[in-house]
Amino acid sequence: MALDFQVVATEDQARRGRVRTIHGEAETPCFMPVGSWGTVKGMTPEELRATGTQVVLANTYHLMLRPGSELIARLGGLHRFMAWDGPILTDSGGFQVYSLARLCRLEDEGVEFRSHLDGALLKLSPERAMAIQAELGSDIAMVLDDCPPLPSPASRLSEAVRRTVGWARRSRRAAAEGQAVFGIVQGGLDRELRRQCLEELVTISFDGYALGGLSVGESKEDRDALVAELAPELPGERPRYLMGVGTPEDLVESVAAGLDLFDCVIPTRNARNGQLFTSVGKLSIKNARYAEDPGPLDPACDCPVCRNYSRAYLRHLYLAGEILAPRLHTWHNLHYYQRLMRTMREAIEQGTFPQFRREFLSRPKENEA
Amino acid sequence: MALDFQVVATEDQARRGRVRTIHGEAETPCFMPVGSWGTVKGMTPEELRATGTQVVLANTYHLMLRPGSELIARLGGLHRFMAWDGPILTDSGGFQVYSLARLCRLEDEGVEFRSHLDGALLKLSPERAMAIQAELGSDIAMVLDDCPPLPSPASRLSEAVRRTVGWARRSRRAAAEGQAVFGIVQGGLDRELRRQCLEELVTISFDGYALGGLSVGESKEDRDALVAELAPELPGERPRYLMGVGTPEDLVESVAAGLDLFDCVIPTRNARNGQLFTSVGKLSIKNARYAEDPGPLDPACDCPVCRNYSRAYLRHLYLAGEILAPRLHTWHNLHYYQRLMRTMREAIEQGTFPQFRREFLSRPKENEA
Repeated sequence: MALDFQVVATEDQARRGRVRTIHGEAETPCFMPVGSWGTVKGMTPEELRATGTQVVLANTYHLMLRPGSELIARLGGLHRFMAWDGPILTDSGGFQVYSLARLCRLEDEGVEFRSHLDGALLKLSPERAMAIQAELGSDIAMVLDDCPPLPSPASRLSEAVRRTVGWARRSRRAAAEGQAVFGIVQGGLDRELRRQCLEELVTISFDGYALGGLSVGESKEDRDALVAELAPELPGERPRYLMGVGTPEDLVESVAAGLDLFDCVIPTRNARNGQLFTSVGKLSIKNARYAEDPGPLDPACDCPVCRNYSRAYLRHLYLAGEILAPRLHTWHNLHYYQRLMRTMREAIEQGTFPQFRREFLSRPKENEA
Repeated sequence: MALDFQVVATEDQARRGRVRTIHGEAETPCFMPVGSWGTVKGMTPEELRATGTQVVLANTYHLMLRPGSELIARLGGLHRFMAWDGPILTDSGGFQVYSLARLCRLEDEGVEFRSHLDGALLKLSPERAMAIQAELGSDIAMVLDDCPPLPSPASRLSEAVRRTVGWARRSRRAAAEGQAVFGIVQGGLDRELRRQCLEELVTISFDGYALGGLSVGESKEDRDALVAELAPELPGERPRYLMGVGTPEDLVESVAAGLDLFDCVIPTRNARNGQLFTSVGKLSIKNARYAEDPGPLDPACDCPVCRNYSRAYLRHLYLAGEILAPRLHTWHNLHYYQRLMRTMREAIEQGTFPQFRREFLSRPKENEA
């Protein structure tokens, strides 16, 4: 296996593990910030490290458009290009083709689409997605999958599973030496389709397994129920990855269900929009109530933002459109997310995760301070 | 005096000095980055410090509009608000009233203008400008001056000098205890008017003297000649400040003329536009020649940007509109400016400034690498 994984503690379904790559280890449960264009917006690699970030996710779709994976390969790969020496996971580009690009043709051979930047006609096949990820040199590559929105007709969902399995087999065959490859379970909200997809993926054998095709239109209740039911069925000796989810509450619930890896734009995108996560609930920095607030974003936070700046100053920066606002907000939100992950890892080790989960989910969601 | 100043070495007209304020010392010649809204765009105070920045300039005009000087005073002053514990110099707001706002009425009493943000009708008088700067709590306050564009009729220039002197007297009287106040020499390109203005300011007695009313439409040649002639006539035992100038070459020439303090938006604004200063000349990062350039911005630079990132990566960030681009570019340009100032300080101490100046001014201006 190109990727070593060990479960070091469990409590009910929740797992405390360790992923080993040639670019270092990651303690799981692990949250991976999104760095679409080869940068987690506004943050240096050193700062990411300081937030507790262990793995960065980069988007194949974005980087194939600009600056191009061949260019990154010629410059020594994505690690060197973005100066991040820890593990990198790349998605296959599929999700962005379905969500950002204009889809032109989806066939068993692959997918044809137009770039959202300049309308250029481009193709992605399982083999091409793997070749691009090999050029980027990520530690973990994802197979190309067929990811329909929800709701979709049953026939569309089963076609997606059939195609996803076929593409997974071709991706596995095309994988570069030494690069870990994860399979992606599709099937919408249909348990039997999901199980059938998973079973076929396990036969192919991957370094890890992901739940994909979520956060694509379904309700939170439907997603939670599916994740809680399916996560424990993913192979226990391999990392389990929940793609594109979610809020702090989602993460706690998903860790409880037995998932190990997570990525989501919520902490970084919300930060840029002035939406901050704190121990006293979510907070919108533009709110007039913070205009003269001398206190830190989060009285319980020890990040550099909370140690140095007042809510009043951060609000001022945000309203003035200053670059420093998204920078500091991103730093704080990532610190919040990574501290949450660390807290969950410790709780599982100490056998106190159920209590932690109960307390966390009963906290106020909006700042009442 | 609210501000201590010592000249520790001289070479021809060039001076190596030290300014002492209650927020610490600054070695001169000293370049002060501009932090209009209480932030040097994209940089934390810690990073500013790491570039070698000793003094930050903040704009009274901007901060009186947003978030308001009263609010900053209630939160403990500008140092605490922006978390910068070194010296701060504030301008009087006058220059921005003439350049950014819509000027409504300019009389001996003061100036009436409309905010460029929301059109609100506002007033600034010498007393009000001092009161705002006292609320901000800067270490060095500037008097309100009358700063006409160039060219202006002789009658307008002499009116400006008469008004500037009257306002300087009122500003001196209105100054807050413990806050240093600098007078501003006006008079356009007319040497006699300039000398008359300076003489009257010296009679009033200030903690330092500034050459104002430059970079307002005159040619570089006219400005250089005026600065070279006038700078040595500013009182030698007080800091001499050249307002709003300039390029690296301008700084070298102005230090040669005997000036001590400088501010300019060039390093920070150019950085945001992808214009970088390097030891091999100026460089526009968007240039296609850097698309696959694995080297640092400046091979002779030891800043964190040059140590960690390639021109190819910085170009990619810039073209992708990533926040990290203006951040890293600003860091590099400020590091370049502050290293230039340090080099000049050392050259004056070692008696090698004329050679340094000759070599520096013979360097290529554009990157030929």
